Amino acid sequence: MSVRRRVRAVRFETRGPGDVTGLEKAFDRGELSPDGVLCLIGKTEGNGGRNDFTRELAVRAFSAVFERRLGLTSEAVEDRVVLSFSGGTEGVVTPHVVAFSVEQDSGPAPDGPRLAIGVGATRRFAAHEIGRMAQIDETARAVAEIAARANIAPRDVHLVQMKGAIPSTTPAEERAAEAAGLPLRSNMVWSRAASALGAAVATEEVSRDALSDDALCRDWSLYSTTASCSAKPGLDRTEIVVFGQSPSWGGDLVVDHTVLADMLDASAVDALMQRLALSPGDDRLVGAFAKSEADPRGTLRGHRHTMLSDDDISDTRYSRCVVAAVVASRLGDPRVYVSTRAEHHGPEGGGPLALVARVR
Amino acid sequence: MSVRRRVRAVRFETRGPGDVTGLEKAFDRGELSPDGVLCLIGKTEGNGGRNDFTRELAVRAFSAVFERRLGLTSEAVEDRVVLSFSGGTEGVVTPHVVAFSVEQDSGPAPDGPRLAIGVGATRRFAAHEIGRMAQIDETARAVAEIAARANIAPRDVHLVQMKGAIPSTTPAEERAAEAAGLPLRSNMVWSRAASALGAAVATEEVSRDALSDDALCRDWSLYSTTASCSAKPGLDRTEIVVFGQSPSWGGDLVVDHTVLADMLDASAVDALMQRLALSPGDDRLVGAFAKSEADPRGTLRGHRHTMLSDDDISDTRYSRCVVAAVVASRLGDPRVYVSTRAEHHGPEGGGPLALVARVR
Amino acid sequence: MSVRRRVRAVRFETRGPGDVTGLEKAFDRGELSPDGVLCLIGKTEGNGGRNDFTRELAVRAFSAVFERRLGLTSEAVEDRVVLSFSGGTEGVVTPHVVAFSVEQDSGPAPDGPRLAIGVGATRRFAAHEIGRMAQIDETARAVAEIAARANIAPRDVHLVQMKGAIPSTTPAEERAAEAAGLPLRSNMVWSRAASALGAAVATEEVSRDALSDDALCRDWSLYSTTASCSAKPGLDRTEIVVFGQSPSWGGDLVVDHTVLADMLDASAVDALMQRLALSPGDDRLVGAFAKSEADPRGTLRGHRHTMLSDDDISDTRYSRCVVAAVVASRLGDPRVYVSTRAEHHGPEGGGPLALVARVR
Amino acid sequence: MSVRRRVRAVRFETRGPGDVTGLEKAFDRGELSPDGVLCLIGKTEGNGGRNDFTRELAVRAFSAVFERRLGLTSEAVEDRVVLSFSGGTEGVVTPHVVAFSVEQDSGPAPDGPRLAIGVGATRRFAAHEIGRMAQIDETARAVAEIAARANIAPRDVHLVQMKGAIPSTTPAEERAAEAAGLPLRSNMVWSRAASALGAAVATEEVSRDALSDDALCRDWSLYSTTASCSAKPGLDRTEIVVFGQSPSWGGDLVVDHTVLADMLDASAVDALMQRLALSPGDDRLVGAFAKSEADPRGTLRGHRHTMLSDDDISDTRYSRCVVAAVVASRLGDPRVYVSTRAEHHGPEGGGPLALVARVR
Repeated sequence: MSVRRRVRAVRFETRGPGDVTGLEKAFDRGELSPDGVLCLIGKTEGNGGRNDFTRELAVRAFSAVFERRLGLTSEAVEDRVVLSFSGGTEGVVTPHVVAFSVEQDSGPAPDGPRLAIGVGATRRFAAHEIGRMAQIDETARAVAEIAARANIAPRDVHLVQMKGAIPSTTPAEERAAEAAGLPLRSNMVWSRAASALGAAVATEEVSRDALSDDALCRDWSLYSTTASCSAKPGLDRTEIVVFGQSPSWGGDLVVDHTVLADMLDASAVDALMQRLALSPGDDRLVGAFAKSEADPRGTLRGHRHTMLSDDDISDTRYSRCVVAAVVASRLGDPRVYVSTRAEHHGPEGGGPLALVARVR
Repeated sequence: MSVRRRVRAVRFETRGPGDVTGLEKAFDRGELSPDGVLCLIGKTEGNGGRNDFTRELAVRAFSAVFERRLGLTSEAVEDRVVLSFSGGTEGVVTPHVVAFSVEQDSGPAPDGPRLAIGVGATRRFAAHEIGRMAQIDETARAVAEIAARANIAPRDVHLVQMKGAIPSTTPAEERAAEAAGLPLRSNMVWSRAASALGAAVATEEVSRDALSDDALCRDWSLYSTTASCSAKPGLDRTEIVVFGQSPSWGGDLVVDHTVLADMLDASAVDALMQRLALSPGDDRLVGAFAKSEADPRGTLRGHRHTMLSDDDISDTRYSRCVVAAVVASRLGDPRVYVSTRAEHHGPEGGGPLALVARVR
Repeated sequence: MSVRRRVRAVRFETRGPGDVTGLEKAFDRGELSPDGVLCLIGKTEGNGGRNDFTRELAVRAFSAVFERRLGLTSEAVEDRVVLSFSGGTEGVVTPHVVAFSVEQDSGPAPDGPRLAIGVGATRRFAAHEIGRMAQIDETARAVAEIAARANIAPRDVHLVQMKGAIPSTTPAEERAAEAAGLPLRSNMVWSRAASALGAAVATEEVSRDALSDDALCRDWSLYSTTASCSAKPGLDRTEIVVFGQSPSWGGDLVVDHTVLADMLDASAVDALMQRLALSPGDDRLVGAFAKSEADPRGTLRGHRHTMLSDDDISDTRYSRCVVAAVVASRLGDPRVYVSTRAEHHGPEGGGPLALVARVR
Repeated sequence: MSVRRRVRAVRFETRGPGDVTGLEKAFDRGELSPDGVLCLIGKTEGNGGRNDFTRELAVRAFSAVFERRLGLTSEAVEDRVVLSFSGGTEGVVTPHVVAFSVEQDSGPAPDGPRLAIGVGATRRFAAHEIGRMAQIDETARAVAEIAARANIAPRDVHLVQMKGAIPSTTPAEERAAEAAGLPLRSNMVWSRAASALGAAVATEEVSRDALSDDALCRDWSLYSTTASCSAKPGLDRTEIVVFGQSPSWGGDLVVDHTVLADMLDASAVDALMQRLALSPGDDRLVGAFAKSEADPRGTLRGHRHTMLSDDDISDTRYSRCVVAAVVASRLGDPRVYVSTRAEHHGPEGGGPLALVARVR
């Protein structure tokens, strides 16, 4: 008979992108064990853009903790722990990290499904596959396999955190692809879009039949409500963490999700909180993970917004600031993770929100 | 027997700071009469700072409408209509204007108190009075007088919109004041602070006895819940518009207010909406007016925020973005007016919110 | 016998985009006559981007001066005076305006060619013409005609200041154009590019035979050294002011130009100053007009620059700041006009510079 | 007989704040020896402000190189190598580092004085000493001692690179100091100011008798032409690197300096280049180190600048961008180090510039 597993999660604040004291304390107090940690998801106070070096600083600093504690090289840590940092704590957001570990569950069998986590990756992609059905299909396959291995049913997946592949290309490859009538799509927009749709297929939210190379970044009625993908130039496979509910896992954590119809959709947050029996400021809350986007049509509930025509401040910063404020004002807690750009992540101008909480 | 007055209000969106078509249409349709207009309160898409010229553009453009319609010079328009524009439509905010006019009410007597508006100004201030009891006392006197003239009881005042005086000074005056042991406080911070406390005395929220030159910008437990002051260098008297409820006014508009305890205080918004029987997206809403501030202590509900240590984006922009998002997410409407910097406007990190709505 | 004409030019500083006192003084002192003014070229302290409203404010304010002085409507002023304002006074640049008027020259015949100015426009463009040979050809024709009318030989043109056409389009037009295999190019990049190449043909710098629809925004070896074009959405013809040297004009002003090979090309500035016998801080200098661009290849003299990967500050702001600093440091004068984005305006990463000065 | 020393310097570009490949290569090629390195001075592509984490990233990354190569802890590296990174590569600046090492000189005696470097620190400061004569005197003593140890005469000092002390303080200390009539000055402005004046005393540019607690940040006619200080909160002693010319050092490097009278003072750069026989683009140039400041009086050569009233972009960014552009345009090289805020570093609105070059 297989041993039951459980997730432990510790959320801690940071005083800067390189501040690892929260993690060190969690290890020192025995709240987490370094060798059980599967992933860290955190927000750092950068701009979230091309010249945001806070993510690199955080990765270096947190990797060094595992190197020292586990006696590993930085490469070995990279293979073992997903370090997922997102820049941008605009407005109320408190820079913070949630660390997730998996261990054997020696407690009594739980009275219902519990949070389960699976980690994995796609195969390596060729540049010409990015933003096309090849990427969607392989992402769907990988997400489905990871979920299955963790014993999470497709419909019980609540968050698919992905670092999307963007293989490097040469000018020669680009010209060849253009000549062949299939210009390369190996950039952030397309990789995020295909990753989200891959997740949507795996979770059975979107039928594979509804998809095509042409539907990407065109038919916005097709979307995932669980994907959260950022794409990284130079990465040639997509790294994936699947969070879901499973009847075969133990512990005291659960996860659920919703989708905000637009940036002001506070009622979606309220409904999700109600399902998890969370009140504002509830200390059972462990993590809040959302995607945001300034509505590309330039309006919000029929009224003009100015986020897309501001040349002083990027719309990505505004959209994170807004969604974080709305979500935090319902949760009563500014420790929310909001990442931006949400192609096929929820409807246009909206985006997914997942909450991890302790059961009562 | 005196004739009953009533307020009419029209809210319109703008396509830019110089776009006056909304006002022109309201005149052309007879929704407002140019010679009855008392004040315009609007948000423009600037940065709200020293190099924000959108306010000047809006004032020029809207003044020109009144000049043309009423055959007046720009100086005469300035004496007659309060043109109050605030820069900064960060995040979801739709650039918009609310125009208020007063006219005789020929309808039946209302079944309860209604929105009343009074306009006026303080006497001229000397620079050494700014930020001290002299400014507080004169502001309190002027607010009280304006409210009384409009037949608004002190406790029925809900919004005191002020453009605070900052008389120009010479280096000689500054040196003389310093030598006399009373350094000048003739700047935005002090003028806003004294204006708010003046309003608080007039509305009987703060006792005059609790105040002193030393209490300003020091004892943050003293504050107004109705003031909304921006201060303007070169202005030597404070311009005031008082909004309140009065039993002797007619029409179909009412006003009420609350104070947000902090930036995430969505429940204060909810309670205010309930008192006005407003549901999200309610078309009875005519105007929402708030003040915001990034908590100067650097934390929000005990958790760090990064708004005050960001050298790329001003905390004023973040705080407007956050409060507007929180308020708009409850109202279901992005046409909210949020102005920033809130010394003695509500508690530290919080701020007042007033809503004008049509009765059911 | 035809009467000789001359240009008068007055340069004045502004305290803000709406400050017209410099122009009023020039009129009051008789330095310029309102009915002789052909164009104003000025820099305002905006961001030069989509949400830069300082240009609109300046146009309104300066137009009002002509309306009042000449008893004209704003539409009539628009037809009569070119009001050309460019946002962005980054770094050392002093917000300023140069006003040019043309009048009869009653003085003695000059001892050499003098500054001549011609004003005109292209015919109206259809959206599908923008960024293609049709726009180039018509721009070349118009520039040549304007120069000829002002008796400026093609090789004596030194500055072609243009407001480039960008006709509005409908989604239907866009789809039709795409279906026809000729996707619309009706945007700023293409309109600036075609305008510059049109000027280059008129001034005989580029052979018409070397050009094609495909060469635009592709073959950067083709460029004008006199064009300075900004493009304006909604404008359906290109407005043109040609500055050159003419043997048939009088007065005491001359113009000459050079091209900076890159942003650091101070020696080009030095050589141009020498030709005009200008020393640093020389009060004979009347106007300096340049175009700038952060080298799109990401390097400068083989070394990396970071202007194109900065998500906090736009490269347009950096490039204006840099070129203005370099030019001003040679001229010893921070009153320089630098406009940005320079497709086919000088070589990649470089740009034209024209100086107007009084003869000795 | 004492052994002659010499400086070796290697300048390398970086692809990001954490890119150490340039240093690794210099070690691998034997151009530098890890155990001889005294200091690294570099520019990183951050904003140079409070939320600039690129410096921390660079320090971590470069420290790790020395830890690995020398088998030391990070604390030991910190004691041994001065890692001085300054954020802000606005405009043309190439992110780059100059590494300086000292070793025995086995070559023939040089034909003149050569670059000498000394490293050291002041004693620990109490918070109440900062920004007052106590800090000036101790800084002067330390600079003089370091220079003397390196056999550099006071007048042969050309660059005093300092990380200025700002001891942490408690609210109790602050209140006590205020009560005693000597409010604490323990912040960046005062620490930079006192550091610069300390250097000026040591180099005999300013007489100790001309100084007083009141002269700081008030009498701007007193200044150093060699200081380059940035101040660091939490540091309780000032770290100092002195660069000068010495007759007893060997090698092929020399240093000289000038002071820019204002931001446009290109002629000062030209004169300095002439003294060092440097032509534009000269590959004998090894390092250029400058301080910049937007003139606090708001004008430049009598003309208004807008750097101090821009609420979108900090004046520190503009001033670095401008001075770097002016210096780079003369040197023909964008690898220049410009640090900002220059209290008592050169005259108001100006600042020092030092060049290190190889002799011919």
